[in-house]
Amino acid sequence: MMFLAALAAGAIAAPAADNQYGVAPAAGPVERWGTLELSFTGPATGNPFTDVELSAVFRQDGRELLVPGFYDGDGVYKIRFMPDTVGAWRYATRSNAPALHGKRGEFTAVQPAPGNHGPVTVRNTFHFGYADGTPFWQVGTTSYAWTHQSPALQEQTLKTLAGAPFNKIRMAIFPNNDDQVAGQHFPFAGKPPHGWDFGRFDPVFFRNLDQRVAQLRALGIEADLILFHPYDKGRWGFDRMPAAVDDRYLRYVVARLSAYRNVWWSMANEYDFLTEKKTDDWDRYFRIVQAADPYNHLRSIHNAFRFYDHNKPWVTHVSIQHGAATEDPERAVLLRDVYNKPVVFDEVKYEGNWTKRWGQLTPEEMVLRFWNGAVAGTYVGHSEIYTDTSGKGEIWLGKGGVLRGQSAPRLAFFRKILAASPAEGLEPIDKWQDYPFAGKHGEYYLGYFNHAQPTSWPFALFKTGLKDGMRFRVEVIDTWNMTVTPVAGVFEIKKRDDYTFADRDGRSVALPGRPYMALRIVRVPEESDK
Amino acid sequence: MMFLAALAAGAIAAPAADNQYGVAPAAGPVERWGTLELSFTGPATGNPFTDVELSAVFRQDGRELLVPGFYDGDGVYKIRFMPDTVGAWRYATRSNAPALHGKRGEFTAVQPAPGNHGPVTVRNTFHFGYADGTPFWQVGTTSYAWTHQSPALQEQTLKTLAGAPFNKIRMAIFPNNDDQVAGQHFPFAGKPPHGWDFGRFDPVFFRNLDQRVAQLRALGIEADLILFHPYDKGRWGFDRMPAAVDDRYLRYVVARLSAYRNVWWSMANEYDFLTEKKTDDWDRYFRIVQAADPYNHLRSIHNAFRFYDHNKPWVTHVSIQHGAATEDPERAVLLRDVYNKPVVFDEVKYEGNWTKRWGQLTPEEMVLRFWNGAVAGTYVGHSEIYTDTSGKGEIWLGKGGVLRGQSAPRLAFFRKILAASPAEGLEPIDKWQDYPFAGKHGEYYLGYFNHAQPTSWPFALFKTGLKDGMRFRVEVIDTWNMTVTPVAGVFEIKKRDDYTFADRDGRSVALPGRPYMALRIVRVPEESDK
Repeated sequence: MMFLAALAAGAIAAPAADNQYGVAPAAGPVERWGTLELSFTGPATGNPFTDVELSAVFRQDGRELLVPGFYDGDGVYKIRFMPDTVGAWRYATRSNAPALHGKRGEFTAVQPAPGNHGPVTVRNTFHFGYADGTPFWQVGTTSYAWTHQSPALQEQTLKTLAGAPFNKIRMAIFPNNDDQVAGQHFPFAGKPPHGWDFGRFDPVFFRNLDQRVAQLRALGIEADLILFHPYDKGRWGFDRMPAAVDDRYLRYVVARLSAYRNVWWSMANEYDFLTEKKTDDWDRYFRIVQAADPYNHLRSIHNAFRFYDHNKPWVTHVSIQHGAATEDPERAVLLRDVYNKPVVFDEVKYEGNWTKRWGQLTPEEMVLRFWNGAVAGTYVGHSEIYTDTSGKGEIWLGKGGVLRGQSAPRLAFFRKILAASPAEGLEPIDKWQDYPFAGKHGEYYLGYFNHAQPTSWPFALFKTGLKDGMRFRVEVIDTWNMTVTPVAGVFEIKKRDDYTFADRDGRSVALPGRPYMALRIVRVPEESDK
Repeated sequence: MMFLAALAAGAIAAPAADNQYGVAPAAGPVERWGTLELSFTGPATGNPFTDVELSAVFRQDGRELLVPGFYDGDGVYKIRFMPDTVGAWRYATRSNAPALHGKRGEFTAVQPAPGNHGPVTVRNTFHFGYADGTPFWQVGTTSYAWTHQSPALQEQTLKTLAGAPFNKIRMAIFPNNDDQVAGQHFPFAGKPPHGWDFGRFDPVFFRNLDQRVAQLRALGIEADLILFHPYDKGRWGFDRMPAAVDDRYLRYVVARLSAYRNVWWSMANEYDFLTEKKTDDWDRYFRIVQAADPYNHLRSIHNAFRFYDHNKPWVTHVSIQHGAATEDPERAVLLRDVYNKPVVFDEVKYEGNWTKRWGQLTPEEMVLRFWNGAVAGTYVGHSEIYTDTSGKGEIWLGKGGVLRGQSAPRLAFFRKILAASPAEGLEPIDKWQDYPFAGKHGEYYLGYFNHAQPTSWPFALFKTGLKDGMRFRVEVIDTWNMTVTPVAGVFEIKKRDDYTFADRDGRSVALPGRPYMALRIVRVPEESDK
């Protein structure tokens, strides 16, 4: 609760700081990668959602960004902007409504506050980084409908996330078929469950979403927003709206939320289960989002059984559901090889005690998949589906709340190990050879032994980047018990054969004969050799 | 040698039958999917290869096929045609040379002889079949430059193939850098190694290639013709010709060889090692071949480390080099999931005693990869690289000759098992679950235990297509020792849980505790229950 109190206090104390929606009013300075919000009064009659067009051109030096605006109800129109450089910016609005057209102004973007690293983008082909250069080591979770629950449960979810290891959450804009709470709002105006006015959005619904995304941002968590999903099953009908409604919905979401630096766009969860949509629809959604988003936030699509063609140019990274690929690094690496983009195994079955086999991973198996993913140079996602013994059905995967599993602390430990890895990302050291190491040739090696229970590991590294006499220190990592144990002494290498360098004295690293063990091997700098 | 003698005798005895190039002269009837060859005399001056355009339109009822012709030297022009239906066909030539233009004629295509099943095409998304409906169970091998060796060695290779289990061979049109024999001909006219006349082909070279492809056809072996490769390494320069020469070369090859029903087009071996070519070049080659080939023969491209985007529409099936993917069916199946096309792991390392680790598979490991590929619903390729103890360097992978390995008989056994499988192809039964069975739900299950050495297998099948009371017979297959042992009795199933049906009495299948074991489980028809 400390976290939420702090946010609220900030909003009261400083008018120029973020309000509850995490946006700075136009008067004050705005952080680089923060959100400026411009508000205008315009037409309130007719249907402002469909009748009124509004955008602004933001200019700095010779550069222009076209930023879409949106109607927020009650005659209020807004334009949100995320400056990606510091300094003076000017803007001018464009609208088919005279009251909104030609509004001009300027503001200054200032250095970001600590913790604001900017948006995440693809880096080094297979990895991610924040705009300020900080690596982004994706450790994700999923809670589809947490923003569709009661305010109290939403706040509980935020509290859980504040103490959890996750830096990305997958979350859906549309509710699931079983989501219904008192006073609930929906993306569209009209009467649930089927009396929607697809021409009008419900600003109250979206203000809550804005706020939740802003709160995630304050927690350093990326919001991987799922734009469509198949869990409607006839309840609300959001999975089979007319194409023109889909398209307007996407543009509205992008206009409202793209100025939040922590937004990622996931076209769908289990896209191939959305039986009303064809490949052309998905391609169109990608293109609409890509064209409307001034900041080029990350874009992906998540499958059930049939992979989308992630080679298509609008896909920035690969979002995968696969139940078995991360049981083995040589499986996981194949999708990297295929797509030449970052691969995030967002769904690898879930930790839990569910009746279905996709929700029965032991916590050990959940953690194992993150490690296998890492030594394959890929990323993995968590969720859990343990029975809520209170009987309220508050399960993390669907509704958020509390975590009941045991993987989260181990994923915090895992994330710390990643954060101490080379900033370029972990690259597989010697693919096709069942050699489960990733890292940076000649500098850093992270190996993982999966279910195996070795009692020793003969010190041998793949040749790239090595030469005789290099020296390495080794640590033995127990990924389940969360210990890092340095191995005494230094290993000095000598060429052994066409492919490997081994310890010059033929030494091995002793291991405890337990599963889930890892090794971290780091080169001793030349200087300290002296 | 019997085989070659028989072919020659046929050519002498019956003028209307195939000649040494495997083509029927225009006078006689032609088999459906056989090759008709029309010859014309035309200009011999200038450069007929570049000056003269020749094609023919073949008509049957309302259907027209545009078939390219080619210059065969000495003032002779040819058009080869593969009729894909029986009955009367008419043709008319088109040319910019008056002597070749407007030639008309007709012929009759008759029923194919036994053994002629037509060309192979994609079937059931992931599999292959001959045009007459016969399944094609790909069991491939590779011998890159066998047609560039001495005539005696080429004949030895054919003799070996006649007794080998392979129904496809990958072979290159260009020689490797170490291929040089007495009296050698090359695809281009001019003086080797660098004095080529890229404007003129060498018909003598191509006549040998024609003949070899025809001989493979007679053996029931598909010729997967590799159009470019990176093993030139400065010797001949065929890996870095001007783009216009590449394109003319492709059209010439297609004009000469597409009327052979057993031709497949492989744009390259290890395409990503051809440093002079870009993705756009490969895309262009595919499109040229696709446009020029009237019969739409199979098209693929083979990689070293970087996969081509096999989702591109001109790729008919996926040709893969990968050293580890077929060690495990759950790896292999991933590429099927990605591409939704037939996947052929054409190179999975090679059986041999080579100095490099890609040529050190034991025969057991070579055979294992075919079985893993099969239960993943994919296909695998063989080759071997054993030292030639005669010192002549006659190694199967490069030059053909004899097979020295021990995998071939096991692959013959494997192919027999495939041939007795459902004609639709082997489909994975329960992906993502490390359940190594493929087959046809409710009818046929082929399982493979890889390196594991189980002593029993609890009888349990994935639910799809099953109901209580169905009965199955089981055979235990030793894939290495090539035995099929029926298990006594019949297993009757009963629903066990949400996912499986098990033997109603909880029985298991006894296994001998050796590696490389497989199971074949076939439903007992209802009729015989009575």
